[in-house]
Amino acid sequence: MNKPVEENNVTWFNGYLTREDREKLHGHQGVVIWFTGLSASGKSTIARHLEKKLYNLGCSTYVFDGDNVRHGLCGDLGFSPDDREENIRRIGEMVNLYVDAGIIAIAAFISPYRKDRESIRELLGKDRFMEIYIECPVDVCEARDQKGIYEKARAGIIKEFTGISAPYESPDTPDLIIRSYKEDATAAAQRVLDLMEERQIIKSPAVIKPPLVIRPV
Amino acid sequence: MNKPVEENNVTWFNGYLTREDREKLHGHQGVVIWFTGLSASGKSTIARHLEKKLYNLGCSTYVFDGDNVRHGLCGDLGFSPDDREENIRRIGEMVNLYVDAGIIAIAAFISPYRKDRESIRELLGKDRFMEIYIECPVDVCEARDQKGIYEKARAGIIKEFTGISAPYESPDTPDLIIRSYKEDATAAAQRVLDLMEERQIIKSPAVIKPPLVIRPV
Repeated sequence: MNKPVEENNVTWFNGYLTREDREKLHGHQGVVIWFTGLSASGKSTIARHLEKKLYNLGCSTYVFDGDNVRHGLCGDLGFSPDDREENIRRIGEMVNLYVDAGIIAIAAFISPYRKDRESIRELLGKDRFMEIYIECPVDVCEARDQKGIYEKARAGIIKEFTGISAPYESPDTPDLIIRSYKEDATAAAQRVLDLMEERQIIKSPAVIKPPLVIRPV
Repeated sequence: MNKPVEENNVTWFNGYLTREDREKLHGHQGVVIWFTGLSASGKSTIARHLEKKLYNLGCSTYVFDGDNVRHGLCGDLGFSPDDREENIRRIGEMVNLYVDAGIIAIAAFISPYRKDRESIRELLGKDRFMEIYIECPVDVCEARDQKGIYEKARAGIIKEFTGISAPYESPDTPDLIIRSYKEDATAAAQRVLDLMEERQIIKSPAVIKPPLVIRPV
């Protein structure tokens, strides 16, 4: 979708600081933890639990979800296949900059298309992208839904609703599967954290930050 | 531009952590330092000097500029008035989330239209947005330009070029004016830093971080 550099009339500026510098400051890697799954499958809830656990370890982290991004950055987009693709593309580019900023970006989006999620993995590189599949049968999501959106989707009031009138493509090889219909949100978040430690994104048993050096500026 | 919430089929999720929590972790406020000015006026250079000074104080910060954003998030946009407006709108929404993440976002964009910059000030609130005007006569920018883009603009090869064939609207009441044609980039960055200390965005003489509490998760 991007134009070649020559056409765009822009060039990369080589900054003074690198991602490694910022990771050193934060005491952990910059990565994206990407939750995918149906609406009301528990993505945002698990993401918030993970955020809290990471915060308690002193990690710099932020949660993005369909709701806060759909109001702002992607407020001009709807739910057609093209708009969903552009929605995920923009989010991918945004979280890519968070990774460069040395932050743990937690993304909780339905992100129904396999190819869109794969584009983000390619953009970020496989070491910077963890795909977590929140598996939950649609009837469980529907029973759990407090916003009444499944009801509206069944009634045809909401069009192109994932799982009802629009497709969801589950990941072939996610980094982790969480079966949220039988797994507690806190325990699920802990499993993500364990995997992050195992992969040395954060240090175990706690994040060891380098001493803060106050140098004259 | 955003659709009403009802149409969008999205609602706000009340997260567990607040901006205040994240500011406490980082030891400073989440804000946007917004540099505006002509191409080659020195925005990115001063921004990078500021970034380094902030980093040395232990602040969590990140620089966005026309170049790195134009390759990614706004790679689909050109330089027409509408595209420039959408470019700045998306950047505004993105940096708004950085502020919420408790980070010092440094933005260095030509951002030629007053109303677009004002929209961002409104979105963020005046206490979270500092507008820094990099004042530099177009002939100085042109003489300084190493990319040869002014030459191309003069020759009509690049269309809609700010200062040559597209307008630049200088700020009426910027938070700070830097006259980059007679002021050193490091000294300019220091003046921004001084203003940030004066406004208690960061603490003087150095950022005092709270002790890192490692709690069991």
